[in-house]
Amino acid sequence: MELITHMKPINVGLLGLGTVGGGTLTVLRRNAGEITRRAGREIRVTMAAVRDLEKARKFAGNELAITTNPLDVVNNPDIDIVVELIGGYTLAKDLVLQAINNGKHVVTANKALLAVHGNEIFKAAQDKGVMVAFEAAVAGGIPVIKALREGLSANRIEWIAGIINGTTNFILSEMRDKGLSFDTVLKQAQDLGYAEADPTFDIEGVDAAHKLMIMSAIGFGIPMQFDKAYTEGISKLTKEDITYAEELGYRIKLLGITKRTDKGIELRVHPTLIPATRLIANVEGVMNAVLVKGDAVGATMYYGRGAGAEPTASAVVADLVDVTRMLTSDPENRVPHLAFQPDALSNAPILSIEDVHTSYYLRLKAFDKPGVLADVTRILADLGISIDAMVQKEPAEGEQLVDVILLTHLTVEKAINQAIAKIEALPTIADKVTRIRLEQLNA
Amino acid sequence: MELITHMKPINVGLLGLGTVGGGTLTVLRRNAGEITRRAGREIRVTMAAVRDLEKARKFAGNELAITTNPLDVVNNPDIDIVVELIGGYTLAKDLVLQAINNGKHVVTANKALLAVHGNEIFKAAQDKGVMVAFEAAVAGGIPVIKALREGLSANRIEWIAGIINGTTNFILSEMRDKGLSFDTVLKQAQDLGYAEADPTFDIEGVDAAHKLMIMSAIGFGIPMQFDKAYTEGISKLTKEDITYAEELGYRIKLLGITKRTDKGIELRVHPTLIPATRLIANVEGVMNAVLVKGDAVGATMYYGRGAGAEPTASAVVADLVDVTRMLTSDPENRVPHLAFQPDALSNAPILSIEDVHTSYYLRLKAFDKPGVLADVTRILADLGISIDAMVQKEPAEGEQLVDVILLTHLTVEKAINQAIAKIEALPTIADKVTRIRLEQLNA
Repeated sequence: MELITHMKPINVGLLGLGTVGGGTLTVLRRNAGEITRRAGREIRVTMAAVRDLEKARKFAGNELAITTNPLDVVNNPDIDIVVELIGGYTLAKDLVLQAINNGKHVVTANKALLAVHGNEIFKAAQDKGVMVAFEAAVAGGIPVIKALREGLSANRIEWIAGIINGTTNFILSEMRDKGLSFDTVLKQAQDLGYAEADPTFDIEGVDAAHKLMIMSAIGFGIPMQFDKAYTEGISKLTKEDITYAEELGYRIKLLGITKRTDKGIELRVHPTLIPATRLIANVEGVMNAVLVKGDAVGATMYYGRGAGAEPTASAVVADLVDVTRMLTSDPENRVPHLAFQPDALSNAPILSIEDVHTSYYLRLKAFDKPGVLADVTRILADLGISIDAMVQKEPAEGEQLVDVILLTHLTVEKAINQAIAKIEALPTIADKVTRIRLEQLNA
Repeated sequence: MELITHMKPINVGLLGLGTVGGGTLTVLRRNAGEITRRAGREIRVTMAAVRDLEKARKFAGNELAITTNPLDVVNNPDIDIVVELIGGYTLAKDLVLQAINNGKHVVTANKALLAVHGNEIFKAAQDKGVMVAFEAAVAGGIPVIKALREGLSANRIEWIAGIINGTTNFILSEMRDKGLSFDTVLKQAQDLGYAEADPTFDIEGVDAAHKLMIMSAIGFGIPMQFDKAYTEGISKLTKEDITYAEELGYRIKLLGITKRTDKGIELRVHPTLIPATRLIANVEGVMNAVLVKGDAVGATMYYGRGAGAEPTASAVVADLVDVTRMLTSDPENRVPHLAFQPDALSNAPILSIEDVHTSYYLRLKAFDKPGVLADVTRILADLGISIDAMVQKEPAEGEQLVDVILLTHLTVEKAINQAIAKIEALPTIADKVTRIRLEQLNA
């Protein structure tokens, strides 16, 4: 990469000029004055690769070159920083690696790419002495990567728990507020543009797991290993469970949780009961929040918009300013991509979900007969699972089955699995047992 | 300053080994492994200046030099970074300037020093090409300086509103929770160690105003001008006002608010009604939270412990890691002290409190007679102040006076001052009018 002298403008090439790319161009232009005053030099988009030339020209005007070939951007010798906003794993990966190979710094919002291919990308960047910045990949405009990587660098991070997918948080908020079913709210979310036509990545927790993998790597200094993340979505949640949780003083949120334990690192995304009094339990709608527990600082929380054109652009542009500010530093002295120096990553294993310790909400459909609860509590006691609360609901008129809700104390997941199998085998229990994990998030 | 080569340990000198200094030493030692893996080199305390040699030796052991003369630290050629934890304006200022003059980087938790003498200190640092880092000066362990200065650098900041003094937030939480008076809770807070024997700086809002001045400077790119901050504390708040606010759906918090307007910058600390549904309204006890509104990102919030040995040390050590990571960068390319390049600060004026626009809670003591409310509403209407809500409380048994609560829409403070003077002059009004500002914090 050519040496960039003081005050020379920074030339940025955008791969993609859709929602986030368009937002990035808009923010860079609107706030050019403030951004230059902060960065000490102008940061300008000089080229963009797009699908639709005409549409792009109309939106972007004539101040930048526009091409349909993204290689024109990554191979352009005048471009200092390439911003990858294409998404996906394949083309995006090739382009990012090519940009790095050409000595360019890269800013990306692509959580999937980093969670799956981050190790290879960071290695390539390290070898070339360039930076790969990715604040926009997690929680949109909330500077949580920076908080974890720099702001909390004094701490041994104990755990991270985040509402890091706005679509699912919107759906859960609506289900609770209005007593609606998952399917009804999903349809509304799609109509509002909060959920994709194919919502699988969001509702099944895959998007949250990508973001969680990135935070876990930075928090604990481990390489990316996305295949070991446990992922469970919200599509099977019923409004009954949301109501019962509420009655017991809990809210259900789709949380990404990563925790350091003696045996390894927990890395899991699943619906979670959390006490309604916790601040994070009151994060509603499309908002995101990440709670981080460090040994020195205690709990800190970061809250804001996790998606949208300008909130995401806010993070992309912050990365552009960051990269600009770090340009003259010795590459070995820059903030490491994953917070820890690349030769100092930990090989702590990711635990299987079977080995995770947490509490549980169990809902059983039982025949309204004597002895049922005795059988159930015996099974739990034999497996060493202690009960925190138990509620038997009144059966509906003419209904033979009653809902029984149990909250357990902390236990290991494999014990709960055994308990559920035994409970489901009882002749007095109809239907499958509903199991939702529960976290106190004590800090 | 001598050039520090890669991997050479960073030598830190502490000025003060009390609560925060002790916490800093403890955290650096306990997390030495993780911190070295992050910073790429060891960060170690090699010297500390203290008051009580014997006590310090007992606490710190023999691995560092201990002196009672702080000049031994600032003039020690082997020390790379001086951490100032003495507090106050006089000795601390001389030592910080001397350290800078000796080419040393400085980390400080001293909000008063920066709010009052920051311009001089940052100028000296710029001239010498050294860094002055101060994350610990605002909101303890919450990395909010970093968020404002780096994480939100894409944004035109519109306003910042923060609960940035734990003592007063604890007092207000207790007054609300338990229906106790200010004096009773202050006494408890002093017994618990949450309030100083002389609590003036906290309860009169001076501490919060110091922190607010620093955030305002960074958010808006203005020099320090602490003498222009408006400061009003919580010592006159009654439990009645807290209850009435609650009934109307509001919580009272001591907020530091700084806002950009067409005419200048608002900079004010005062008790504030905020809607109880806002997340920040639910920040209780000694916790701090800062809400920042940027034009691109929308509202983001940062929450955590604002004081205490290890939370504050968390920020001090994060600054040590930051300074270490930036050591090899060209000074002109580093993150500017106040986010904006020093030659690009704005001369936007700070508005007088008379020119601030906000809403108001007014409580009147009125004789329970016909026509009182007509007189009051006429006064407000004549001054162009529109009323959002009005509640007349039932008079207590045998009581001639009733409480009347008014909430106004947005208005300018000088109009409210005129209205209050006229209302107090009414023969039907007894006593002074209680006035508390109200912010919707819409984002």
